[in-house]
Amino acid sequence: MIRVVTFGLGPMGASIARVAAARSDVQIVGGIDVDLAKVGRDVGDVIGLDRQLGPLVSADASATLRSTKPDVVIHATGSRLADVAPQLIQAIRAGASVVSTCEELSFPFEESSELAGEIDRLAQSHGVAVVGTGINPGFAMDTLPLALTAVSQQVESVYVRRVQDVAHRRLPLQRKVGAGLSLAEFEEHRQAGTIGHVGLSESVYAIAHGLGWKVTATINDLGPVIAKAETRSGEIAAAPGQALGVRQVIKGFVGDDQKVTLELEIYLGAPEPRDHIVVEGTPRLDVTVNEGTHGDLATAAILVNAIPSLLHAEPGLRIMEELPLVHYRAPDAEEASRKDDPRVRRTLAF
Amino acid sequence: MIRVVTFGLGPMGASIARVAAARSDVQIVGGIDVDLAKVGRDVGDVIGLDRQLGPLVSADASATLRSTKPDVVIHATGSRLADVAPQLIQAIRAGASVVSTCEELSFPFEESSELAGEIDRLAQSHGVAVVGTGINPGFAMDTLPLALTAVSQQVESVYVRRVQDVAHRRLPLQRKVGAGLSLAEFEEHRQAGTIGHVGLSESVYAIAHGLGWKVTATINDLGPVIAKAETRSGEIAAAPGQALGVRQVIKGFVGDDQKVTLELEIYLGAPEPRDHIVVEGTPRLDVTVNEGTHGDLATAAILVNAIPSLLHAEPGLRIMEELPLVHYRAPDAEEASRKDDPRVRRTLAF
Repeated sequence: MIRVVTFGLGPMGASIARVAAARSDVQIVGGIDVDLAKVGRDVGDVIGLDRQLGPLVSADASATLRSTKPDVVIHATGSRLADVAPQLIQAIRAGASVVSTCEELSFPFEESSELAGEIDRLAQSHGVAVVGTGINPGFAMDTLPLALTAVSQQVESVYVRRVQDVAHRRLPLQRKVGAGLSLAEFEEHRQAGTIGHVGLSESVYAIAHGLGWKVTATINDLGPVIAKAETRSGEIAAAPGQALGVRQVIKGFVGDDQKVTLELEIYLGAPEPRDHIVVEGTPRLDVTVNEGTHGDLATAAILVNAIPSLLHAEPGLRIMEELPLVHYRAPDAEEASRKDDPRVRRTLAF
Repeated sequence: MIRVVTFGLGPMGASIARVAAARSDVQIVGGIDVDLAKVGRDVGDVIGLDRQLGPLVSADASATLRSTKPDVVIHATGSRLADVAPQLIQAIRAGASVVSTCEELSFPFEESSELAGEIDRLAQSHGVAVVGTGINPGFAMDTLPLALTAVSQQVESVYVRRVQDVAHRRLPLQRKVGAGLSLAEFEEHRQAGTIGHVGLSESVYAIAHGLGWKVTATINDLGPVIAKAETRSGEIAAAPGQALGVRQVIKGFVGDDQKVTLELEIYLGAPEPRDHIVVEGTPRLDVTVNEGTHGDLATAAILVNAIPSLLHAEPGLRIMEELPLVHYRAPDAEEASRKDDPRVRRTLAF
């Protein structure tokens, strides 16, 4: 039984906590959130279960971590490492391994190398492991492309295009990508840095690090996908000429060579949602995740699925490629399957 | 620099050795083969390089391993664990980690549990790690589907269909799948067990083990794909009514539930070669490897790419899911990429 505290119970944190709570091999022993509407209530109520889990949500992280002594903290409070680092440090000091949705934590060695070093040393000294993951960064645009290169004799470049339709997603996400904004409003948000996805540069660095490339420059492009016709979904509508959502492209260079290209399109009514990965090299690899991977479902899953691998990793600040293969495992799994041998075997011709 | 001995220099072993020899971080320090046409010749000549590598091919495995003290043995001599186990044991006793193409070694705990236990204990006592891998088993029909479940909240079943065209592959492979045989000849080979692919049941067990399922029964089907029209490729031709190749299906059951289904079709002129993976569950995952993965290129690659992960694994007999993520890494990689921070960053609007 793995004892877990959930740190951050917003929509994403609650979604992860529901996946954790459904597993018979995980026990949620505490919940931390600063939202006064949640504090003092049973964690089960707060995350939307129809049953109570026992522990009450507390705003006092330090007291909760001290009294519950969790094996793992599931951390989901923010995207920026500088903002959340004090929370990570609290968890590590309490002797917990940490799996976090913090996008910048997924590969912090380029943009926050000092903070990364501090977290790494602290985690090592407490014998715990820390990793940032999710669908993106964490899987669709970095770990999965990297996993495909297992069969590469040589790699020239990596290209990933992820197309997501936000029509049936949460309203905050629809707003975050700019759906329904005028182009002037979109441009204001773009300049303020309040639109678009955090974590693309981390994916570039994670791929490049895995492949042994030293990224010397990145170029980021971010702009609106513009409605040609009136487009509606739930409370959101975009008139012709307004933004449907966002298109972001990041290019990672090694010297003059464009080695990693990541394109992310998230907008209302995007046709054929998919992830498309091309690894140019020997052999060439061309992989399509048809329909793509549902961001919220997938992120909640990978945070929980990463826990066993995290507990088998070397202490310190880890990246996904350093973990034993992260995968789903049924909570009621018997350990017997490697040991005994009661097979029934038949060979039939067609 | 990783010191490697190649054990087995047939077509597959030579192909792997060429990939290893092309890397500046690998040194081939010995080659072992029983073929008298190869013994005494420079390993570079034998594997088809246009340069010599220094060491000569020897039939004396024991002497070669003792004198060269390799870090890793690349082993490629056979599919059946019982046949090759004495060679693996020689390598382990010499203090080498072993990466092997032996299909049955990829998941030997069901069908050869005693031998697996013996190899596991011996490897642990010598502080080395041993793994069996390749494209299939080892990646396309087991590790890759398992890797995809990183984003699964729950998995109901796994289906993989791999379609390969042997038109432009090696003649021995074309013969091995039965291309050009009459149906009576095909049936003779089928009954003698001399046709088709070894390792599908290992892939079923590897997936099930990863997902925490206890396979209670497997059903194997193997039959010909039959030519409708005259079909030719190089020296091989199949008349209408003759076999173009083989179709194999294995179904893995947990109780009454068909949980893993693997279909492998390898034949002359197969249209749309591809690997298609469907993970039924939450979310549903549907992934296509367009054009598939070229068997020989991919196997040679993954044997070499697995080496760094193997050297970071816990000692013992390992399976692919237990290794840190296996991926390509450029041989001239600088370790610097995690440490310093010389980025050039621009944000451009479209």
